Amino acid sequence: MSMTLCKSVLITGSSRGLGLQLLKEMAKSSNRPSTIIATARNPAGSTALQKLSKTYPGVHIVTLDVDNQKSIRIAQEEVRSIVGEKGLNCLINNAAIGQSMDINTITPEAMMKHFQVNTVSPLFVTKAFLSLLQTAAAQSTGMGIQRAVIINISSIRGSITCNWDEGANFKSYAYRTSKAALNMVTRCLAADLGSDGILCMALHPGWVRTDMGGPDADLSEEESVSGMLTVLSQLTDKDHGVFKDYRGNNLPW
Amino acid sequence: MSMTLCKSVLITGSSRGLGLQLLKEMAKSSNRPSTIIATARNPAGSTALQKLSKTYPGVHIVTLDVDNQKSIRIAQEEVRSIVGEKGLNCLINNAAIGQSMDINTITPEAMMKHFQVNTVSPLFVTKAFLSLLQTAAAQSTGMGIQRAVIINISSIRGSITCNWDEGANFKSYAYRTSKAALNMVTRCLAADLGSDGILCMALHPGWVRTDMGGPDADLSEEESVSGMLTVLSQLTDKDHGVFKDYRGNNLPW
Ligand SMILES: NC(=O)c1ccc[n+]([C@@H]2O[C@H](COP(=O)([O-])OP(=O)(O)OC[C@H]3O[C@@H](n4cnc5c(N)ncnc54)[C@H](OP(=O)(O)O)[C@@H]3O)[C@@H](O)[C@H]2O)c1
Ligand SMILES: NC(=O)c1ccc[n+]([C@@H]2O[C@H](COP(=O)([O-])OP(=O)(O)OC[C@H]3O[C@@H](n4cnc5c(N)ncnc54)[C@H](OP(=O)(O)O)[C@@H]3O)[C@@H](O)[C@H]2O)c1
Repeated sequence: MSMTLCKSVLITGSSRGLGLQLLKEMAKSSNRPSTIIATARNPAGSTALQKLSKTYPGVHIVTLDVDNQKSIRIAQEEVRSIVGEKGLNCLINNAAIGQSMDINTITPEAMMKHFQVNTVSPLFVTKAFLSLLQTAAAQSTGMGIQRAVIINISSIRGSITCNWDEGANFKSYAYRTSKAALNMVTRCLAADLGSDGILCMALHPGWVRTDMGGPDADLSEEESVSGMLTVLSQLTDKDHGVFKDYRGNNLPW
Repeated sequence: MSMTLCKSVLITGSSRGLGLQLLKEMAKSSNRPSTIIATARNPAGSTALQKLSKTYPGVHIVTLDVDNQKSIRIAQEEVRSIVGEKGLNCLINNAAIGQSMDINTITPEAMMKHFQVNTVSPLFVTKAFLSLLQTAAAQSTGMGIQRAVIINISSIRGSITCNWDEGANFKSYAYRTSKAALNMVTRCLAADLGSDGILCMALHPGWVRTDMGGPDADLSEEESVSGMLTVLSQLTDKDHGVFKDYRGNNLPW
């Protein structure tokens, strides 16, 4: 795959699933980011991640539990020293949890856990790396991945509009509400950071055969990630504050 | 005010603000609900609530801290014995908190507290009173307040669509995300409970001069509540699963 990406990218949750696949495709692409920061809460536990970092140069593994403020602080320092004065071009908030629980099985604890990991964590991870994104943004003009972008991996399950008729067959109060709330975080960040030249958007990867998506899902990891990388490489100011899917189609909130 | 309402209504957070005003206008109206259940976490602390319950017959005060599962269970039993075999026609999830905190001042704790009170609590309060709503719904046909409705008091601040341009001037990551998530809860409930004949919708009261809205807000409590009660009295199946304001206009998610 050949596409213009950026100098540096950071991905959360890159131990497996879409995070790992994003990392792999980026590392393999010609014209790839020279600095790829693969974060995971337990990097040692992922053989695939360890192997990848040995196969491709410029892949830095950083420990980051997105649900732990201390871990965020330590990762922040480490990433600062990796990217240096160039700052960070692209932050991909990918790590998430997803349990399907219907009206009978849902618990307050499950709701709160999903909000913690899927909504609050991406916001505070973003805040931690914001000054590095601002540093990168200050060195360029326009809007797009070559400057500074925040990509929140959301889900069509977080679209309130789409949760109706057949779209409502998937039952998960916790996952759906946490992703709708993440979409609001995305929009708040976009409103706040546009003037810094930092593009923020929400991206739906499609329904993908990962641990979360399950074996019956529509897409392979390759199909989803190839689509998402095309979307990323083509981002312009028109995509600021919007919700898109992996094919580049706009989704309703 | 004269309008066809229903036999029984329950309001959360009726110690002050819009909850108290909803209660007052309902109690005063001709053709009023015969059973009005005013809940508050500390009813003794609200002189206005105590006075109202002495002025108008059929106003039952029930202690309910929406953020406490034990309090919800106790209130559930009490309400069951008040409404009896007729069940409950109308549940108004009104209690909420709202702090404005911008990108610099927001904390994980504030985010989680808003999700707890504004999103998770309305869901579990609804679950607690669901069998009473189903009991009422089983005794009637059609859709509307005379049968069974769940009204989640939301806010235009929870509209992701409206959080842009001038609509983005109000900065509150915690309040906005919790109300966007409440809108998703509303939509999930609507998808699940429509077949029971229970109408669910999200209602924006306008910007109102309460403790939360502040003294500079557009509307008096009377104006907001008069509009909301007109909306409630006119609900039909077209309003199921939608987001409306106090004037009856549809809002985007
Ligand atoms: N698959 C789909 O069909 C689909 C559809 C729509 C949206 N999405 C979204 O796409 C993203 C990736 O999903 P996926 O399918 O790849 O899921 P997955 O296979 O379940 O992988 C989830 C990843 O998130 C990580 N993670 C979870 N909690 C974490 C924490 N506290 N700190 C750091 N990392 C954490 C996991 O790390 P560990 O290995 O340490 O557990 C893992 O790397 C998610 O945002 C998901 O909501 C997926
Ligand atoms: N005012 C506006 O401009 C505006 C605009 C849009 C939406 N809204 C929404 O309208 C609703 C009412 O707002 P308001 O303006 O009347 O707010 P308010 O004046 O601040 O009153 C809030 C009410 O919620 C109650 N409450 C808070 N936490 C509670 C808990 N854990 N258990 C039980 N009750 C609790 C408070 O009880 P205590 O007295 O015990 O604290 C009080 O009765 C809220 O859902 C709000 O988000 C208001």
